[in-house]
Amino acid sequence: MEKILIKDVILDGVTQDILIEGNLITEIGNNLKKDNALIINGKGKAALPAFYNMHTHSAMEILRGYADDMALMPWLQDKIWPVEGKMTEEDVYWGTKFACLEMIKGGTVLANDMYWHWHGEARAVQEMGIRMINGYTVLDLLDDQKLPQIKEEVQKTFEESHKYGDLVKFSLAPHAIYTVSEKTLIWTTEFARKHDLNIHIHVAETEHEFNECKKNHGLTPLAYLDQIGVLDSNVFAAHMVWLSDDDFEIVKKRNLKVIHCPVSNMKLGSGIFRFQDYQEHNIPICVGTDGCSSNNNLDMFEEMKFAALLPKISTRNPEIASAEEIFKTTTLNPAQSLGMPAGEIKIGNLADIILIDLDNINLIPNHNLISNLVYSAHGDCVHTTICNGKILMQNRKVEGEEEIISNFKRVVKPLK
Amino acid sequence: MEKILIKDVILDGVTQDILIEGNLITEIGNNLKKDNALIINGKGKAALPAFYNMHTHSAMEILRGYADDMALMPWLQDKIWPVEGKMTEEDVYWGTKFACLEMIKGGTVLANDMYWHWHGEARAVQEMGIRMINGYTVLDLLDDQKLPQIKEEVQKTFEESHKYGDLVKFSLAPHAIYTVSEKTLIWTTEFARKHDLNIHIHVAETEHEFNECKKNHGLTPLAYLDQIGVLDSNVFAAHMVWLSDDDFEIVKKRNLKVIHCPVSNMKLGSGIFRFQDYQEHNIPICVGTDGCSSNNNLDMFEEMKFAALLPKISTRNPEIASAEEIFKTTTLNPAQSLGMPAGEIKIGNLADIILIDLDNINLIPNHNLISNLVYSAHGDCVHTTICNGKILMQNRKVEGEEEIISNFKRVVKPLK
Repeated sequence: MEKILIKDVILDGVTQDILIEGNLITEIGNNLKKDNALIINGKGKAALPAFYNMHTHSAMEILRGYADDMALMPWLQDKIWPVEGKMTEEDVYWGTKFACLEMIKGGTVLANDMYWHWHGEARAVQEMGIRMINGYTVLDLLDDQKLPQIKEEVQKTFEESHKYGDLVKFSLAPHAIYTVSEKTLIWTTEFARKHDLNIHIHVAETEHEFNECKKNHGLTPLAYLDQIGVLDSNVFAAHMVWLSDDDFEIVKKRNLKVIHCPVSNMKLGSGIFRFQDYQEHNIPICVGTDGCSSNNNLDMFEEMKFAALLPKISTRNPEIASAEEIFKTTTLNPAQSLGMPAGEIKIGNLADIILIDLDNINLIPNHNLISNLVYSAHGDCVHTTICNGKILMQNRKVEGEEEIISNFKRVVKPLK
Repeated sequence: MEKILIKDVILDGVTQDILIEGNLITEIGNNLKKDNALIINGKGKAALPAFYNMHTHSAMEILRGYADDMALMPWLQDKIWPVEGKMTEEDVYWGTKFACLEMIKGGTVLANDMYWHWHGEARAVQEMGIRMINGYTVLDLLDDQKLPQIKEEVQKTFEESHKYGDLVKFSLAPHAIYTVSEKTLIWTTEFARKHDLNIHIHVAETEHEFNECKKNHGLTPLAYLDQIGVLDSNVFAAHMVWLSDDDFEIVKKRNLKVIHCPVSNMKLGSGIFRFQDYQEHNIPICVGTDGCSSNNNLDMFEEMKFAALLPKISTRNPEIASAEEIFKTTTLNPAQSLGMPAGEIKIGNLADIILIDLDNINLIPNHNLISNLVYSAHGDCVHTTICNGKILMQNRKVEGEEEIISNFKRVVKPLK
């Protein structure tokens, strides 16, 4: 069993040692010793739980900066979809490798993802060593005649999905209520329940979606999904901007997992997430970056700053969404929502740890580390990234990064 | 005369050379040669105008993360002011050195500043080699009996202000209408006009300020300042959130300079800047970070992202505030508002240039450089910073940075 001993690192404000054995944190204390352990010098660094990015489309790295400042439908139809139509599994593989590289460099070790070419993503993630809940995108453009073909493909991919190791999990990602027919949504739900899988879905992102659903079904998107039986504690709903007051009760009753994407919602002008209402209903929030082309990066530090500032300005209350609270939306809340012993550095938890460089200029002075991380830091403050007890980055170097970058550039070129 | 020749750098999408002689850009083209010029290899880099941060309180670096998530008045009264009251000129000197270091590392070479201990700031800025419009803070807490003393101090500091070189300019910074009496405001205006100085003032930041001014004077803050004769083209008004529709005409008529601080306004819950209305009135906008304790950094990349996203979400229109437009709020617009030949890289302009590292992971792929800078980059994408023809940072190294950091930490400690 591999062992890592992090010596003299700041943890919860105190200098301590952290012992990792296998993929777990097994001891925390002073003057720890362990034979055959790899020693990491933690001096001048702080240990924190690594980030979990709860909504993204990793390979969309390919489209960073390709099209911005556009309305949603022309953006999708004229820019994004035509390029995505040309993408091969090889493109998605390198796009995902590059996304993992950006995530590792920014301290993120889990992506709750949704994209095309499932195997391309899975292979990339396995090689890079992070965790991914890899959502198989289900989309029939409201034509349920496509369901038999979808069933076959989902079944096949699910059966093949176990070969990518423990860190890559299969999930089902019905795109949204306006792109997936009711019949297909219901079948997806049943398949997920039968095989104990998560569902990852865009819900109530835009006012248009909300209004159309009311028109077509006489219900809000959330009430509609509840009525057809989709909602349960295995459902991870991204965006969740357009809710009626009653919808919050549905979220609670179904123990739905809520993922907030503040940068994407702001950039696309989708609407303002009702942070305060979620808080008043004691509904924990997770945060995600969304895909790179509606963000345009995967930096969870930046995402936290937006997540903290958007509620303050929208309620005109600077006391809401404190740094401490927001830090949990990228660490403890995602881990709990996934039922994983993680999100905090404590004995028995998974060794998903980042070391932050306290000499980084954005972290000086250090009156309050969590405030500095949420309001001042960027991804480049991360010195070391550890996922599942494996070191993925040390001193900002990731193995093979030059090769990933050059291959990524190679596949992007002809797609333009 | 010193000469710098930047070879093979990307400028406006094309590989070119840039010649700097003294403090000016004197040639742009291919295969440039110059005897005795210092050569910078620009391969893999893009040349862009350096940023001008148009509203900040540099030495507030000392207070980064010291107090957050609080309402404005308890934040000021219980946290910020007590520490500021203890600050010496030495503290402000090291706070400003550290702020300059952060700015240089993030590609910023001009700060439009307002703080205490004028000489401490001026000395620090001169040593660091950036530009500062160093605002002498005028504040009488509405007691105009203090005016004689203020007059004396302003006159004295102004006379001594010329010894800090060409890059440090004296300006007058009456704090705000709720902290400076009418008599003092009027005298400040006259002094500025007589000596051809800028005025830097907080205007219409909060609803409270707006409502109090209406109550006390029957006028909006802007109309009040206009009525007492303060407003003119030399006035740089920070925040400018709470305007009546008629106030936009005053801004235009007086050719007032408008400084938008999106992060600060969001973090303090002050209100939403009326970006679209400024745009419809053809009023150019400059952007500033505000002080570090209401931000909590001086990163102009991040500030641009907030400046681009806030109008999109507040108007629910993703087409507003394009990356191109926002990039100008930190480069061309500030230069023009200050009447400086700068803000674009062209022959005859001041050599205020940054080289961006195109191999930085946040800038790959490079479909659109300006989009990448506004939506994806952070300060650490800057490789080289040049101000007034002098290299202040190369390969992310600033001369003497370790000494600045250790002295900064030393002065911060007893202030806590």
